[in-house]
Amino acid sequence: MAEPIDDFFAVIPAGGIGSRLWPLSRAESPKFLHDLTGSGVSLLRTTWDRLLPLTGSENIGVVTGRAHGAAVEESLPDIAAANVFIELSQKDSAAAIGLAAAILHRRNPDVIIGSFAADHVIKRQRVFEFTVRQAVAAAREGYIATIGIQPSEPAVGFGYIKTGEELVIDDAPLAALVERFVEKPDLETARAYFADRSYLWNAGMFISRADVLLDELAANEPELHAGLIEIAAAWDTDRRDEVAERVWPSLKKIAIDYAIAEPAADKGLLAVIPGQFDWDDVGDFASLWKLIADGRRGKVTVLGKNENVLDDEASALVVSQTDRVVALIGVENVIVVDTPDALLVTTPEHAQRVKGAVSSLHDRGRDSVL
Amino acid sequence: MAEPIDDFFAVIPAGGIGSRLWPLSRAESPKFLHDLTGSGVSLLRTTWDRLLPLTGSENIGVVTGRAHGAAVEESLPDIAAANVFIELSQKDSAAAIGLAAAILHRRNPDVIIGSFAADHVIKRQRVFEFTVRQAVAAAREGYIATIGIQPSEPAVGFGYIKTGEELVIDDAPLAALVERFVEKPDLETARAYFADRSYLWNAGMFISRADVLLDELAANEPELHAGLIEIAAAWDTDRRDEVAERVWPSLKKIAIDYAIAEPAADKGLLAVIPGQFDWDDVGDFASLWKLIADGRRGKVTVLGKNENVLDDEASALVVSQTDRVVALIGVENVIVVDTPDALLVTTPEHAQRVKGAVSSLHDRGRDSVL
Repeated sequence: MAEPIDDFFAVIPAGGIGSRLWPLSRAESPKFLHDLTGSGVSLLRTTWDRLLPLTGSENIGVVTGRAHGAAVEESLPDIAAANVFIELSQKDSAAAIGLAAAILHRRNPDVIIGSFAADHVIKRQRVFEFTVRQAVAAAREGYIATIGIQPSEPAVGFGYIKTGEELVIDDAPLAALVERFVEKPDLETARAYFADRSYLWNAGMFISRADVLLDELAANEPELHAGLIEIAAAWDTDRRDEVAERVWPSLKKIAIDYAIAEPAADKGLLAVIPGQFDWDDVGDFASLWKLIADGRRGKVTVLGKNENVLDDEASALVVSQTDRVVALIGVENVIVVDTPDALLVTTPEHAQRVKGAVSSLHDRGRDSVL
Repeated sequence: MAEPIDDFFAVIPAGGIGSRLWPLSRAESPKFLHDLTGSGVSLLRTTWDRLLPLTGSENIGVVTGRAHGAAVEESLPDIAAANVFIELSQKDSAAAIGLAAAILHRRNPDVIIGSFAADHVIKRQRVFEFTVRQAVAAAREGYIATIGIQPSEPAVGFGYIKTGEELVIDDAPLAALVERFVEKPDLETARAYFADRSYLWNAGMFISRADVLLDELAANEPELHAGLIEIAAAWDTDRRDEVAERVWPSLKKIAIDYAIAEPAADKGLLAVIPGQFDWDDVGDFASLWKLIADGRRGKVTVLGKNENVLDDEASALVVSQTDRVVALIGVENVIVVDTPDALLVTTPEHAQRVKGAVSSLHDRGRDSVL
């Protein structure tokens, strides 16, 4: 078995609720704390388990909100307390990952950090490890490396990475420069991308030396950078709370894609490693159904322990969070999500619109179920 | 306002659960105890209110099971205790109505009884009363009278009555003989019946002198008749329980249609009065939806107090028995029945199959939700 990678630290931002998976995912019980695959453990825990061989347990951290600190520690009993980075409020990915980078750089100036979403599903562990090791090798050379997923279909739900010139980096045989990032395409464009093997899905994974990342942030978002450096300087002292409470609220909300990745790509500083592993962001109930039914939808698939699901000529995904009887008679292609205080009935084609229902409920003052 | 009809007594058999309306209707909470129209009171209570002008409150009785005696008295606070006829076990309609007929005949040898289901919906009260008064007039002449509903569509879900020769009866201008009863037809046959105005829906309402009814029962089902006479003789004495417990379990289970109505039709003893009022047996959720949405299905109709139903491009009937949020996104033509311990999702086209789900749950030992 391979050793953990020297100076490599994995940061897991665990901030998003996953509103498109409401009422399963909600503020008090976000997507990353759920077992969406029937594995018996949370997505966060599978993310930890996936990274552990690459880092060792001392070198994995989680950036999360105050509300979820305890749940994160419960889900990850081996995490070091010093590696749970609590955000005072949600500030998007540049601040979340930048904070971890600034703190970790103070702790170890040679650290290479990789950021990996807390709530994605990845299969083919050995291929994943092989890919991350290449990304770290590219990062050691001073690149900001990302992992682009080899598309398995012409998806319109993801952004794409157009790979450019090959890079010659020891231990990173598949590395190439990123030519540019592309927004979510329409179907026709997605089909063209799918036919052209140089377009990869942007899975939002970044691997970089912390100093390189912080330099890029300083160049593009100097105020955000300065704020994070100030908080990081106080973080491992008794002034953490005082400084964080003063500085954090003023920080800019911006995604790492805009604050760092796209400008770096323009400078020829962004490398991509194509990932040949299976990856799914489980963005809505349609993709959840596909994932757990292995693509076969012509029957009833149950996520949950409920043995009281009864069907008669039905095809459905049933997410059962109660022990109620759920009877489905003659309904085709529906998604039923049954929780103690909220019920959702939708279809795969409309699954993206669940987020809108969450907004409507918020507008109605029904935040207790959100 | 018209007076109650002399010697007329309305019997309401309240025995059926209404399994096709599960999980709303169930053993502990049968269909007749529900408010299916949003009127604010149970179907049983609306049945009482509809009959009251024809009978007065002393002349309405209910035949029901032991489990529902208390609920019946609660739903009908004006009912006389002596008019609640408790069946020791379910024995189908001939025994239920025959028992009431035998008891009431002992109390008043001139009584004319009418049997009216506890769980149907009728609109146009004045037309209903006009029709029943004619049926009573025919019954006074010695006929067993039934009310046939003028079809409003070529329904395949009901049996039909073929009207025959007109009868000349004072106070029953629309009375005719029943030529024969017809089983539920296929659609083509139903269309032919609908075009031919002499076919009426069999709504299972029978109006007859008690002595005539009992004589017919004696002729066709002598053992059942003898048993009922024996129980009736003891009913208003302190021997009621002893005799009922001995005799009732041995009685034959048979519908009044076969035990009395069809043989009476063959003898030219059965009269029919066409009813021009709106009638619905609310046999399943498809007819419930139609009833409460007034035929318009292109939106979301909610039965229940739930103001937390949220829809986005959906058409559905939502029967809400909880205060849970129910969100419907992009689902067309579905029926969602949300109760504390069971959830049903089906379509109007499959609503008749709900009864099968009830059987399956019984087979699985899940009687607690039935």
